[in-house]
Amino acid sequence: MRLDKHSSIPLYAQLRELLVEQIQDGRYKPGDQIPSELTLCEELDLSRPTVRQAIADLVADGILVIEKGKGTFVAKEPERFVIEHFNALTFSFLNFDTYEGVGLKPIKLMEPDPELDRMFKYPADKPHPGYWLIEWPLRADNEILGICSSYVPVQIFPELGQSISAGKRMVDIKSNKYAMLPQKGSLSVLARPAKNKEAKALNIPRRTFILAIEGPLFSRSGHVCEVLRVALRPDLVQLEMN
Amino acid sequence: MRLDKHSSIPLYAQLRELLVEQIQDGRYKPGDQIPSELTLCEELDLSRPTVRQAIADLVADGILVIEKGKGTFVAKEPERFVIEHFNALTFSFLNFDTYEGVGLKPIKLMEPDPELDRMFKYPADKPHPGYWLIEWPLRADNEILGICSSYVPVQIFPELGQSISAGKRMVDIKSNKYAMLPQKGSLSVLARPAKNKEAKALNIPRRTFILAIEGPLFSRSGHVCEVLRVALRPDLVQLEMN
Repeated sequence: MRLDKHSSIPLYAQLRELLVEQIQDGRYKPGDQIPSELTLCEELDLSRPTVRQAIADLVADGILVIEKGKGTFVAKEPERFVIEHFNALTFSFLNFDTYEGVGLKPIKLMEPDPELDRMFKYPADKPHPGYWLIEWPLRADNEILGICSSYVPVQIFPELGQSISAGKRMVDIKSNKYAMLPQKGSLSVLARPAKNKEAKALNIPRRTFILAIEGPLFSRSGHVCEVLRVALRPDLVQLEMN
Repeated sequence: MRLDKHSSIPLYAQLRELLVEQIQDGRYKPGDQIPSELTLCEELDLSRPTVRQAIADLVADGILVIEKGKGTFVAKEPERFVIEHFNALTFSFLNFDTYEGVGLKPIKLMEPDPELDRMFKYPADKPHPGYWLIEWPLRADNEILGICSSYVPVQIFPELGQSISAGKRMVDIKSNKYAMLPQKGSLSVLARPAKNKEAKALNIPRRTFILAIEGPLFSRSGHVCEVLRVALRPDLVQLEMN
């Protein structure tokens, strides 16, 4: 046994990390029952408060769950929503065949913005009519898994806002625009602290790490035609790349 | 101004979130100086301790930095190491052309393991000689950015451990194994709490979220020939997909 009664690390913390490592090594698997408080006390020659504190910490961490009258169990991992065949176009608005059921928020017209202008490679001194901002939630079972934002230049799609508000079909919106539709992208995938707005929209504490996907999409001719910013719940989503 | 003196939210917290939002909206950019304590006090009609507490919180969060004698500035974003052209084979050991300079740890021989056996689709009742575990750090400028682990079946590469220990070149190790080398993969990309071992190796606090890449790689014939588990520092790395 690896508990060291002469260590400066409190015994409850040693026991806590011992249990964590046994769970992480697969000795106790999600759903498995761990030994009772009494068994741990006896086997490791520990006091009841020491064992209780270690277990309370792990319950607070979400690693163990106590089922009343049954015992203490390794928490089941949250069931993650798998985004299959994830690629640069997965979250592209212009790549959608339809926006029915997507739950778009009202589309917004945005002024030119220095950061976006840089991504779209628009010269700073040349005025242009701005961007459409299209936003929609990524949901599963009524839970919000992520917030998707797509920026599309008004220059390329002058009527986009009106067309969507009027309920025009995606196939009609995209007709004759084939050369302007995204074919590939250059997306960053990273974990970073949520911005306050993202935290609020995702219903997570401020500054929680999120999984973010950000970057430009390119048309057949190599021009940036869309910029994506996706913020995903780190505990609920996983990307699958094939 | 959006501070509400009748709100139940303390004024220092309101000011803190106001500043955060101005930074996140791009009004103050990384490296910009924010107004002095005195200016904030006067403009917003706040007491000095209120302003000081808000700024102290943001310094503790790493959002602001105080430069003595100069003022308070928006912290520069950490420079992230970009893993360019990230794809299923980026972290594949069997895909490497060389392991020189990679800093492999001593290769280990692992017993069959139920979880790996499942990923390799090895029947539980059929014995096999286990796996080679190859581990190496991902480094930049002497900083550890990640820990990479590759599992390769002994059945496919019986001599792998000896060959590497003997300094055999990768091209010789892989010769005649073309049909067994990874061609594609099915990788999960997710953010999850670090296991204790990962936290220790990455030098981050326990249970910190990491960026993880995990899954099987397939040979030309569709068989699993390698399993990857990569744990990346979320604050230092970003994946770029093209």
